[in-house]
Amino acid sequence: SGLVRVKNPHLDLMEEDVLYHLDLGTKTHNLPAMFGDIKFVCVGGSPNRMRAFAQFMQRELGLAGSGEDVSDICAGSDRYAMYRAGPVLSISHGMGIPSISIMLHELIKLLHHARCRDVTIIRIGTSGGLGIEAGSVVITDTAVDSSFQPRFEQVVLGDVVVRSTQLDKDLAEELLACSRDIPDFPTLIGHTMCTYDFYEGQGRLDGALCSFSSEKKLEYLRRAYDAGVRNIEMESTAFAALCGLCGLKGECCRFHL
Amino acid sequence: SGLVRVKNPHLDLMEEDVLYHLDLGTKTHNLPAMFGDIKFVCVGGSPNRMRAFAQFMQRELGLAGSGEDVSDICAGSDRYAMYRAGPVLSISHGMGIPSISIMLHELIKLLHHARCRDVTIIRIGTSGGLGIEAGSVVITDTAVDSSFQPRFEQVVLGDVVVRSTQLDKDLAEELLACSRDIPDFPTLIGHTMCTYDFYEGQGRLDGALCSFSSEKKLEYLRRAYDAGVRNIEMESTAFAALCGLCGLKGECCRFHL
Repeated sequence: SGLVRVKNPHLDLMEEDVLYHLDLGTKTHNLPAMFGDIKFVCVGGSPNRMRAFAQFMQRELGLAGSGEDVSDICAGSDRYAMYRAGPVLSISHGMGIPSISIMLHELIKLLHHARCRDVTIIRIGTSGGLGIEAGSVVITDTAVDSSFQPRFEQVVLGDVVVRSTQLDKDLAEELLACSRDIPDFPTLIGHTMCTYDFYEGQGRLDGALCSFSSEKKLEYLRRAYDAGVRNIEMESTAFAALCGLCGLKGECCRFHL
Repeated sequence: SGLVRVKNPHLDLMEEDVLYHLDLGTKTHNLPAMFGDIKFVCVGGSPNRMRAFAQFMQRELGLAGSGEDVSDICAGSDRYAMYRAGPVLSISHGMGIPSISIMLHELIKLLHHARCRDVTIIRIGTSGGLGIEAGSVVITDTAVDSSFQPRFEQVVLGDVVVRSTQLDKDLAEELLACSRDIPDFPTLIGHTMCTYDFYEGQGRLDGALCSFSSEKKLEYLRRAYDAGVRNIEMESTAFAALCGLCGLKGECCRFHL
């Protein structure tokens, strides 16, 4: 049916669903009227960038002439920012798996309550590239963890549940095809490694703590490259797992700074 | 000596240290002049709340009369917000361990470069209480993970390193003593459980995914209570581990919503 699925039998029994961190709710807002026609959701870490992206989409879609600027739909919360441009939602998710997970749980419920159909979600933003040209865009085929495994370990009531982190192959190929129309825009498909930590977890030598040598760092990054990793960031495994389970066609596209 | 310690031999060899997510740096800013007299750092998730806290501290310290409002020291970055009121810094850290870790790495380097001495850091904010009166404040003695263990598992180049999550006992007692002077302000010392996930990880029945029954949830929370847990949040283990390793006297105080 193309509907966004929630997998929670308790939700049907609830009188009201408050999407607390988005400052939205089923009793306070008419979610089908506000969001029923959404077809694309783009998410990224920084609120300012996601605002700029919504403004860019307004121009690209020819909606900018209306003179209306985008306004933050979640203005009542300072946890996330949300903008819309036609059928495109642009939402910030902060940094790291816990932060994007809260946003995705509430976004998925939002799309479910709004009865959206055939929604494509794309994570955009910057990442650290691995053995690729600066300025390249990496389209993720599979998100892997810090051991290069295609899995997301979710703790549920203290127990570890392992989830798949495969992303939509057709969507990845479609995005790669789009990139071919843009000159001087090196784009490739590869694995994306997702870590819980920016400094020690990604082998940076400039954190407050660093117990390893430059050689050990390079040896780890070389192993990651050999396992197919082409960029490193902090949200993709949770993104892939949640989108996959809830019937959202999802993809990660990261620009290598 | 009371100095904030970094544990990274590479830092001394760097010509410049850019604290990227704080939009500060050793060449672009005179960090000792800006921050050398800082004695307290208070951190919390939400930027608006940390601004309000800095304004509150201004009033409490009798600095408000100067007519100056607090301004965001990290205004060039939308990752975190930072305000100061006299010797007190007030900084937001977003939600979850990865987000607070990035901020703490850069904050610790900031305090190190600024040659601050005898700095106390206190994490403030809201949390979910466990078997305690609503409105209570929990002062954390030890942060525990989702298996109720007093440890933080940090992945360093793909390997797990286990770190202690003990917080400063004297500081906890001092804060408890302060609370006694304030009537109708129930305050207690207990363990704080830190999870990577807000919905499935903390036993919430209203996420986009929920595979467990209300009974299983209560059974898990009861086990947590029996292990000494009095509140649940998403940053304390990383906070305790990083502060402990770097010589920052640290404490978590959470208000139970």
